[in-house]
Amino acid sequence: MTALTVDARDGCARSGRLRTAHGEVRTPAFMPVGTHATVKSLDPAEVRASGADILLCNAYHLALRPGVDLIERAGGLHVFMGWDGPILTDSGGFQLVSLRRVTSVDEEAATFVSPYDGSRLRVTPEEAVSLQARLDADIVMCLDQPVGWGSSAAAAVAATERTHRWAARCRALHPGDGRLLFGICQGGFDARTRSESAALIGGLGFDGIAVGGLSVGEPLDVMEAMTAASLAELPGDIVRYFMGLGTDSELLAMVDLGVDMFDCVAPTRLARSGSAMTRDGRLALRRAMYRDDLRPLVDDCPCPACTRFSRAYLRHLLAAGEILGHRLLTLHNLTHLTTLMAATREAITAGRFAAFRAEADARLLAGRASGDGPDDPPFPAPPQRVGARRIPATLDPSG
Amino acid sequence: MTALTVDARDGCARSGRLRTAHGEVRTPAFMPVGTHATVKSLDPAEVRASGADILLCNAYHLALRPGVDLIERAGGLHVFMGWDGPILTDSGGFQLVSLRRVTSVDEEAATFVSPYDGSRLRVTPEEAVSLQARLDADIVMCLDQPVGWGSSAAAAVAATERTHRWAARCRALHPGDGRLLFGICQGGFDARTRSESAALIGGLGFDGIAVGGLSVGEPLDVMEAMTAASLAELPGDIVRYFMGLGTDSELLAMVDLGVDMFDCVAPTRLARSGSAMTRDGRLALRRAMYRDDLRPLVDDCPCPACTRFSRAYLRHLLAAGEILGHRLLTLHNLTHLTTLMAATREAITAGRFAAFRAEADARLLAGRASGDGPDDPPFPAPPQRVGARRIPATLDPSG
Repeated sequence: MTALTVDARDGCARSGRLRTAHGEVRTPAFMPVGTHATVKSLDPAEVRASGADILLCNAYHLALRPGVDLIERAGGLHVFMGWDGPILTDSGGFQLVSLRRVTSVDEEAATFVSPYDGSRLRVTPEEAVSLQARLDADIVMCLDQPVGWGSSAAAAVAATERTHRWAARCRALHPGDGRLLFGICQGGFDARTRSESAALIGGLGFDGIAVGGLSVGEPLDVMEAMTAASLAELPGDIVRYFMGLGTDSELLAMVDLGVDMFDCVAPTRLARSGSAMTRDGRLALRRAMYRDDLRPLVDDCPCPACTRFSRAYLRHLLAAGEILGHRLLTLHNLTHLTTLMAATREAITAGRFAAFRAEADARLLAGRASGDGPDDPPFPAPPQRVGARRIPATLDPSG
Repeated sequence: MTALTVDARDGCARSGRLRTAHGEVRTPAFMPVGTHATVKSLDPAEVRASGADILLCNAYHLALRPGVDLIERAGGLHVFMGWDGPILTDSGGFQLVSLRRVTSVDEEAATFVSPYDGSRLRVTPEEAVSLQARLDADIVMCLDQPVGWGSSAAAAVAATERTHRWAARCRALHPGDGRLLFGICQGGFDARTRSESAALIGGLGFDGIAVGGLSVGEPLDVMEAMTAASLAELPGDIVRYFMGLGTDSELLAMVDLGVDMFDCVAPTRLARSGSAMTRDGRLALRRAMYRDDLRPLVDDCPCPACTRFSRAYLRHLLAAGEILGHRLLTLHNLTHLTTLMAATREAITAGRFAAFRAEADARLLAGRASGDGPDDPPFPAPPQRVGARRIPATLDPSG
């Protein structure tokens, strides 16, 4: 019996429950990102109230600051950060791409230079697993080596093969004691390499498999083809996690292919730039058109931003640089994604996922949310790329 | 019958209840500052949970942004900002000192230049009252003209006399309909001028009286002498409000003289710089000595920061620049002050305020909270002056 129970299937899409040592995760699931042991701007009780079952922390960042020793001594991440639900920790593999100027890789290990104090952190695949176990992660990710969009085929193959050797070393050290260990398949941007990687990783007996190294700048059709090539080779009874996604439309496209789990900094990062996620597209609250708009942000959304405040008040908070604006938009965006996932699960159970996805995409395409008002001059433009968790070449990709 | 019911007296100190259109305020009371219609970093539900009965907003700032029209159309400040308790609005008089480079005053009105867009806002005393009524303030403050510490006696007398003429104009326009109108006595730093001002303002029939123009840099003994000179001339049955205070020790000193209400940006501003207010003095959480400290911030404090997290986690949040750290420290500091006020009321009721104050001061003087560990190098030094709500020569004194 695997940790996943599939309750319903609709085409390749599926709805189920993943059992972890700290409770059940309803899938398809969206995981809020709490890189530094906090989902940016939120109290863990708010994360729970937004509908999230599980969150993601980053073992690489936490190992550098505040350090694994402290978190272990505190009783693990759950106690340290006050979140009693499941936690997945990312291994730091992605930082080999996003922080490539301050990392190096050899066959034995990955070496990171701390952006905080310049110290070096050398991590073998085995250490990546044991560090995450010491953090008390419910889901431990293998150390992998992705490649960026635009890398050569030879570089992709070499990194993928190393990922395979590292995966076997991680698997040999499965921490057990109720933790789940997830493999990560790679393969660059070639369908055959993707298939081979998925078949190999899928055969190692992991508790779940992540599709890694995508949503790094490639076009959507490439992302879809690479994901399809990967998923076709994976065992049907274990959970599948697409790392670092995304927009509503991307999430539904990947659910359609059979993905069960997602994470992304988009809801927190968009909130910081003043954007609300809605079923009609993004609503850029900083626009002057919302200055006197006393309507709720989104009519039927159950989040505090929508039930207790107006667009005009939220815009006022953003204009005044007030933290409550950031908080309320973050809560809204998380609620939007967990609500989307809940509706997705219902649609799958009812056997109407295709229609559900088509309706959601059509409504997004109509894109009425942002209207056509001019941007309000006093505010800076929002950042250019927010759809991906994995934003290369930044030292702090933490939502 | 006045809006204040005095339930207990102990020397000059008194404990009571102030009735407003949005509920009762237990006095002595500390009012959190929500300059821009939000207490920095907090949800109004959290402000309530911290034990605050009433908060302060700034009519001058709100008139400039987002504008009185919008807030009035939203149904008033309570609806706009989601706070259903009492609200006191400051008139903008203090900005005549703190923003003196961008303000001018003549007999008819004060003129402010907006720091946001350079536009001019000219406000007569009558308009100051009607603007606050349109905001739906429960307590409306007169427009006054304070002077800074170091001003000449002649300037202080002239400003005080203008304050008196403006007070009479405000009083003639008492907005009624359940709102309370508070006069502000001035008098610079001369005891006789203070006494005369208090006698005059105290005779105009206001619902409460504020002592203004203090805590602007003068020594504590001057502050105490000026307050005592003012309070001696005020009617005994109406509420007394000291504007812009302060530290635990200062608050208790003023309660001892008979003050009932306070406001200050200290709890929010100290939180921003990483300092926790405790009965043993300020605890500078950024210090390296708290890095591995898994104890609660303050043992018997009921706030979320103290009951659900450790010093080490709070310090980690501050080190990582995470908003939750700011939030939790703000909640803690507000809870500290509302708890201090609750204990003060109990001590007055029990007739042991003098002993209570002496014990509190002795414990603060011992000042064990901060320890003697070195400052942690990666963090900037905290701002130099945080004890006063009223910080001259800054364009954004909003906590």
